[in-house]
Amino acid sequence: MSDYQYTERIIKQMIAAWAEQNKRVDVFFAEYNEDVYLKEVAPKRNRAIYLLGHLVAVNDGMLPLFNLGDKMFPELTADFLFTPDNVETKMPTVGELKKQWKELNLKLSERFNAMRVEDWMGRHTSVSEDDFTNEPHRNKLNVLISRVNHQAYHLGQLKLMHP
Amino acid sequence: MSDYQYTERIIKQMIAAWAEQNKRVDVFFAEYNEDVYLKEVAPKRNRAIYLLGHLVAVNDGMLPLFNLGDKMFPELTADFLFTPDNVETKMPTVGELKKQWKELNLKLSERFNAMRVEDWMGRHTSVSEDDFTNEPHRNKLNVLISRVNHQAYHLGQLKLMHP
Repeated sequence: MSDYQYTERIIKQMIAAWAEQNKRVDVFFAEYNEDVYLKEVAPKRNRAIYLLGHLVAVNDGMLPLFNLGDKMFPELTADFLFTPDNVETKMPTVGELKKQWKELNLKLSERFNAMRVEDWMGRHTSVSEDDFTNEPHRNKLNVLISRVNHQAYHLGQLKLMHP
Repeated sequence: MSDYQYTERIIKQMIAAWAEQNKRVDVFFAEYNEDVYLKEVAPKRNRAIYLLGHLVAVNDGMLPLFNLGDKMFPELTADFLFTPDNVETKMPTVGELKKQWKELNLKLSERFNAMRVEDWMGRHTSVSEDDFTNEPHRNKLNVLISRVNHQAYHLGQLKLMHP
């Protein structure tokens, strides 16, 4: 098997790992009534609804970072990315966030599957051309790897909830 | 850049992601006095000491799975892999588990860095040659991807602790 085919296979495996984490989040947020997700995952820790908004905001950031377009839900950035969980924050409902999560991941999946090996191995928009020459591991695939781990991290927390 | 170099780079990135998760676990278990880790990470959930033993046992499983030799700490398998956390279990101390964790990851790091692209893309020992022909994604690299996510999942839980 050629190396090009190896590289394509690995990239497919990483996209599959990302999709698998998305699916586990889907399953978790389909399991209970909406009011359950208004509870904290553990005493004095983030509420599940906050973590869902946070995961949407983080995945959404991959669109501009990969030069695939603007964020779909830029209104979530301030409250779910730059601000810790706060009961005073006026949030969308769990149902609205779940809808955004699905729409976003559908769009990202389509875009990811259309990207070529060279796209994945190319720099993301927050690293300069000069820096990328010296640090070629700062490519789009590395961002995806890090996002998959970030989702697993928060999924582990969500699964500690007592519904 | 040749495709072979791409494949090598991606594999290095995955090993780096695994090492980064190990390091974050190191940092967490170096932060407090040992008795803190005898507490549950959240009410009625696993104790931190159990999750440490569990992470050792899971990483240890990669040695036979990748055909790199026997497990270093097979005595952990029954209590930390096949059995839920139980205060009745006679466990090693946190200090002992931390030592095992470091020794094991040092050995795994050395072995991983010596593996070639073809090794990573080859089947692991729990998939048969026939099955692998039809499911070539069941390679060693895929196991590593899944182990990195597994570590991130439990790290997220550890970080919820109130020391």
